[in-house]
Amino acid sequence: VLATNQPAGEAAVMSETTPDHHPKRVLLVTAHPEPESLNGSMARFAANHLRQTGFSVKQSDLYQMGWKAVLDTSDYPDPDQRRLRLLADSGRATLAGTLTSDVAEEQEKIRWADALVLQFPLWWFSVPAIMKGWIDRVFTYEFAHGPSRGLPYTESALGGKRAMLAVTCGARQTAFDDRGIHGPLAEVLHPLQHGLFWFTGIAPLEPFAVYDTHHLIPPDFPGICAAYARRLENLFQDPTVPFRKLDSGDYPHDMRLRSGREQPGTIGLGMHQHQ
Amino acid sequence: VLATNQPAGEAAVMSETTPDHHPKRVLLVTAHPEPESLNGSMARFAANHLRQTGFSVKQSDLYQMGWKAVLDTSDYPDPDQRRLRLLADSGRATLAGTLTSDVAEEQEKIRWADALVLQFPLWWFSVPAIMKGWIDRVFTYEFAHGPSRGLPYTESALGGKRAMLAVTCGARQTAFDDRGIHGPLAEVLHPLQHGLFWFTGIAPLEPFAVYDTHHLIPPDFPGICAAYARRLENLFQDPTVPFRKLDSGDYPHDMRLRSGREQPGTIGLGMHQHQ
Repeated sequence: VLATNQPAGEAAVMSETTPDHHPKRVLLVTAHPEPESLNGSMARFAANHLRQTGFSVKQSDLYQMGWKAVLDTSDYPDPDQRRLRLLADSGRATLAGTLTSDVAEEQEKIRWADALVLQFPLWWFSVPAIMKGWIDRVFTYEFAHGPSRGLPYTESALGGKRAMLAVTCGARQTAFDDRGIHGPLAEVLHPLQHGLFWFTGIAPLEPFAVYDTHHLIPPDFPGICAAYARRLENLFQDPTVPFRKLDSGDYPHDMRLRSGREQPGTIGLGMHQHQ
Repeated sequence: VLATNQPAGEAAVMSETTPDHHPKRVLLVTAHPEPESLNGSMARFAANHLRQTGFSVKQSDLYQMGWKAVLDTSDYPDPDQRRLRLLADSGRATLAGTLTSDVAEEQEKIRWADALVLQFPLWWFSVPAIMKGWIDRVFTYEFAHGPSRGLPYTESALGGKRAMLAVTCGARQTAFDDRGIHGPLAEVLHPLQHGLFWFTGIAPLEPFAVYDTHHLIPPDFPGICAAYARRLENLFQDPTVPFRKLDSGDYPHDMRLRSGREQPGTIGLGMHQHQ
């Protein structure tokens, strides 16, 4: 187990293995158009540091790949021209193995990975469009959820994997804290933390965030890397967000939280975590 | 003023005018790849019904337009090849009038509009990538926010306008209510309601939602249209979400809500509304 206060770059190599003794596998998905940006520099650091830590690493650099962002009807070709609904079309193509090769390759990387790290600049309080398009197109019905994959919000689809968001924010940290005007960062990111990861069985960690990016100067970069390094090294040790499972008995048939399960006075998104 | 229980299509023509007596102007932005889908049908209904109600209407049908979803460095051409940061590049291009024509045209539609309606299928608890790309590329620095546009979360940038999200959801309504496992729909949509609209000065209405879409059958469509019609007719009468303004005295210099401003016990996103 890695010490949490170890300097970046000195983590023990090959200390993290799975039960069948292969190194832990991490898929790093990144999305910034400018390689020389803070995000581009952080992406290079993360890929190198994950490898130095002893993990196996694959990277999907969406801009560099020219990722097709827009899900359209060409995603689900059907020789019989049966046009169902998009969700059904996506499930049929997934089960039939007729997804486009770019999507199939990303799904294979996700199957391979023990953890996903999605790193991006926070644009309008969410992922850039190119990354939303990676989510829209890759997390198909019958891959990430759907009848053949069991209940959502359980481990039945992509369970056993972990995920971490790594975001750069123009705003200061105070504006994203418990009383900050933007809302708590984890609640702003709820559509990803709970709606994407937890929904598909992936256990999310607390996000890693860099704030106030417009006022950063080059001497700030080593400190950012050191903080990012600690989070990357501890991907498999840090606690995950204690969201509730759908099949825990907390949610009756209508998917509403049974009364009395939350701490008195809890409202909103926080209700769906164990406290 | 339109009666709220009026049947769809019988609203009084030209009853809604601005102080300078032009009809109220609505920009309808839609995003579904299949014209024969529920969303496609709702978009046609909405455009027609808004016109029958007496509003002036422009539509941006993003799939039909072939909207470029991905913001990249070609968005901000600069003959001098000065590469700043994307936010600064976007502000410079906005002030210099060198934005690409597709973006400039959308900004002109937003300036023209008294209200925006964004209609889309809820994909992974957010907008489809093509609509995220409309947001990323159109809401530039120095247009929707930034030094020349005054403080965010006030009326100084795009103030005086209203907005409504119209979303179709595969999930049932119970899963999106106050105890529903997905979280309250308005909180899931917080990055749009508060992070996009309110941030730029636009006052959002409560979202209009159609639930359980995978189980809808054609006879359900007239009822959906009737409910949608009432919300469209009342775009300028229905109350907007009572979010707090940044310059109200509620937020000191660090953008955190001053203590004691919220109802005791309120936590999370709800803190930023007047109760």
